[in-house]
Amino acid sequence: MSNVITLLTDFGQEDPYVGIMHGVIYGIHPQAKIVDLSHSVKPQKVEQGAFLLSNSYRYFPASTVHVAVVDPGVGTERRAIAIYIREVGNFIGPDNGVFSYILQAESSRNAAIEVYELTNPVYQLPLQSSTFHGRDIFAPAAAYLAKGIALSELGPNIPLEQLIKDFQIPKWEMKKSGKAKRARGQIIHIDHFGNLITNFPTSLFADLSQEQLKELKVRHSSGLTITGLQKTYNQSKRTAFNIYSLISLFSSSSYLEIAKINGNASTLLAASIGQKVSVEVPLNRETKLLPANIDKLEIS
Amino acid sequence: MSNVITLLTDFGQEDPYVGIMHGVIYGIHPQAKIVDLSHSVKPQKVEQGAFLLSNSYRYFPASTVHVAVVDPGVGTERRAIAIYIREVGNFIGPDNGVFSYILQAESSRNAAIEVYELTNPVYQLPLQSSTFHGRDIFAPAAAYLAKGIALSELGPNIPLEQLIKDFQIPKWEMKKSGKAKRARGQIIHIDHFGNLITNFPTSLFADLSQEQLKELKVRHSSGLTITGLQKTYNQSKRTAFNIYSLISLFSSSSYLEIAKINGNASTLLAASIGQKVSVEVPLNRETKLLPANIDKLEIS
Amino acid sequence: MSNVITLLTDFGQEDPYVGIMHGVIYGIHPQAKIVDLSHSVKPQKVEQGAFLLSNSYRYFPASTVHVAVVDPGVGTERRAIAIYIREVGNFIGPDNGVFSYILQAESSRNAAIEVYELTNPVYQLPLQSSTFHGRDIFAPAAAYLAKGIALSELGPNIPLEQLIKDFQIPKWEMKKSGKAKRARGQIIHIDHFGNLITNFPTSLFADLSQEQLKELKVRHSSGLTITGLQKTYNQSKRTAFNIYSLISLFSSSSYLEIAKINGNASTLLAASIGQKVSVEVPLNRETKLLPANIDKLEIS
Repeated sequence: MSNVITLLTDFGQEDPYVGIMHGVIYGIHPQAKIVDLSHSVKPQKVEQGAFLLSNSYRYFPASTVHVAVVDPGVGTERRAIAIYIREVGNFIGPDNGVFSYILQAESSRNAAIEVYELTNPVYQLPLQSSTFHGRDIFAPAAAYLAKGIALSELGPNIPLEQLIKDFQIPKWEMKKSGKAKRARGQIIHIDHFGNLITNFPTSLFADLSQEQLKELKVRHSSGLTITGLQKTYNQSKRTAFNIYSLISLFSSSSYLEIAKINGNASTLLAASIGQKVSVEVPLNRETKLLPANIDKLEIS
Repeated sequence: MSNVITLLTDFGQEDPYVGIMHGVIYGIHPQAKIVDLSHSVKPQKVEQGAFLLSNSYRYFPASTVHVAVVDPGVGTERRAIAIYIREVGNFIGPDNGVFSYILQAESSRNAAIEVYELTNPVYQLPLQSSTFHGRDIFAPAAAYLAKGIALSELGPNIPLEQLIKDFQIPKWEMKKSGKAKRARGQIIHIDHFGNLITNFPTSLFADLSQEQLKELKVRHSSGLTITGLQKTYNQSKRTAFNIYSLISLFSSSSYLEIAKINGNASTLLAASIGQKVSVEVPLNRETKLLPANIDKLEIS
Repeated sequence: MSNVITLLTDFGQEDPYVGIMHGVIYGIHPQAKIVDLSHSVKPQKVEQGAFLLSNSYRYFPASTVHVAVVDPGVGTERRAIAIYIREVGNFIGPDNGVFSYILQAESSRNAAIEVYELTNPVYQLPLQSSTFHGRDIFAPAAAYLAKGIALSELGPNIPLEQLIKDFQIPKWEMKKSGKAKRARGQIIHIDHFGNLITNFPTSLFADLSQEQLKELKVRHSSGLTITGLQKTYNQSKRTAFNIYSLISLFSSSSYLEIAKINGNASTLLAASIGQKVSVEVPLNRETKLLPANIDKLEIS
């Protein structure tokens, strides 16, 4: 038996939709501990939900049941599924790609993964709508699963290969350019503080020397360039060369991030998801950013 | 003893008002499970609170204590009350009509209902304000009630007839008009997705044939007309006759709803609560929408 | 062992940052009861966080662990601390003044206070970021503390005197002016309803007669004057002299407040924090507002 159930939806918090899911869960599993991960996914933006969930699940006990309901196809032929990943967690939601990032990451680790289709009406609300499976199918499935019902009770096992895994972190590209290497990427998320999360994973910078980290240049499509990588939101000073107090640093979700000290980088740069960002690393001394013979890498 | 306590208020979530109510509840009843149903009721809009609560309570265990604090008259002569409805739930809040819809629905089912006035200072915070009864009176009452204190301990029994039951779903009207019947109603709620909930209950359409459901016309006051009823948010195609991807379908709360596929119908139609919506059903073949001799129905 | 943990941050609720903190807490202390006090502190506004927390903590059990993460200096030299106040509560967060008001209030009561620095890596997440100590340091510390780990296990004891206590409620000033006394203060908070909370504590008015309370004048910097103090939000009538339905009354947090009946005073007055407000009390009959020989008081 597990108790923690997380909810990630595009329902917002004005309507009682989320609270109703809590009610259904408590009705089935009174010991549940429900965590509202986010209900501010933009309506129908499955990819955004997939990204936010992928940044969160590792911080929960492996017995947790994560429910994701960003579900523009609710009521259509798309499947309702439950995924079990050993030592990682359980995931319940529509089969529309919302678990893409997690399945890619955990598959690449060779984690043991099982998938089931939620077809057993015994573990669904008796009166079902075609428009609110969060209430009628996903919340009950999560509650029963957390309560100890076996996954195989919820419906038939289906092959992992059949799942929709459409979404992925956009790929960055790396090119030699004179005496430097330049990686080209983009903004993939803007958070509440206006911090701009890029698609450059921090692992990309793991082998750089302190000197290279200091000389590295991050360019936003606006033309503004930030020199050097900071450790904290407060470390760089406003100087003649940095009148906007913009800095780059590693985000808590392990991507390169652009921020404004005590301010909002997104507002300042009129930022939006998809805007280009490039990183230039000087080549002098043996750069280990990437093996010398590779010009373009894909994130594994 | 019960554990689930729901909170519905117009407090918003920026201030700690709601969190303070949680603190008061846990101080009295540490085993409570608190559900935030919604705190986005528009300030002082008792009727909106009444509507949202009426769409939610059926999805909670019958032992639940539902607290509703939309209370422009806080501190005045208006009563503070607790309502027990057998096999349905307990309701705590001001006697200002916020339980109107629930009382109408459950009275019409002949549910056993008891009402008590919250007057016993033993079950209130010792230092009371005139402005925050959510903290000083309602949260303590809910916590004690959930903990097992008898309703009759909270104050004197009062007759159900004395309660304020001002609000009701606006009535629709039905008229024969040539070869069709036309029902006239309005928008009563707009949700986070921009879906427009009307006051036509789905029961009104229960006896229509498949053909009639396909030919039925829903007209919004903007002049736009939607033909046919869909089952899901994703089923209709954009066609020359439906360039806006507007559809009508049954909402999860069992009313007729206007939606835009993967979009926001409210923004598109500049919708607002109270706007007129009509439904036209062709009369050919024996229409069972309503008995032939009835031109105007009231929702019981 | 305690179970209630409150969270107050500037994280907003769109991102999963808050939910991740819940996950970390439940992973360590599955019996925790987590209360989201507010996540709408304006980014980096430590003072606002300090004020909201100071209005809330008294309504929680004394065993509660209150976590405050408004932390522009995250990852820098600023200390991470835990404060124990006997019979009051435990407080965890950065040493940046966010506990100022509480420390002032409780010190003046001579409460027993102990402070510890959070340095023990055993009670932190193994992989630490420089940007999200809410997740990596504060949530684990709160969970272990609530679970029963002794404060002294979390790190070394440090003297209370070393803490940063920068913030305080702005002082009001009192002056005799002809036949009245006038106190000059300001707006220190605007809540979700648009109510304007001033820095005049209700204790300032404790000794006024009913007549003086009726004749008292509250002046907002816009020039608008409100006469008399009301008990509730609903008690004054709109008259020729009060066409805006503005009233003044005692807020639930025990300060003088300006409100608009069934409306938003902040919008009406284009209010902002720091705007001047004055209170004029007629002197006829023995005014006990302040001892006769005192012209300026400081809040103790």
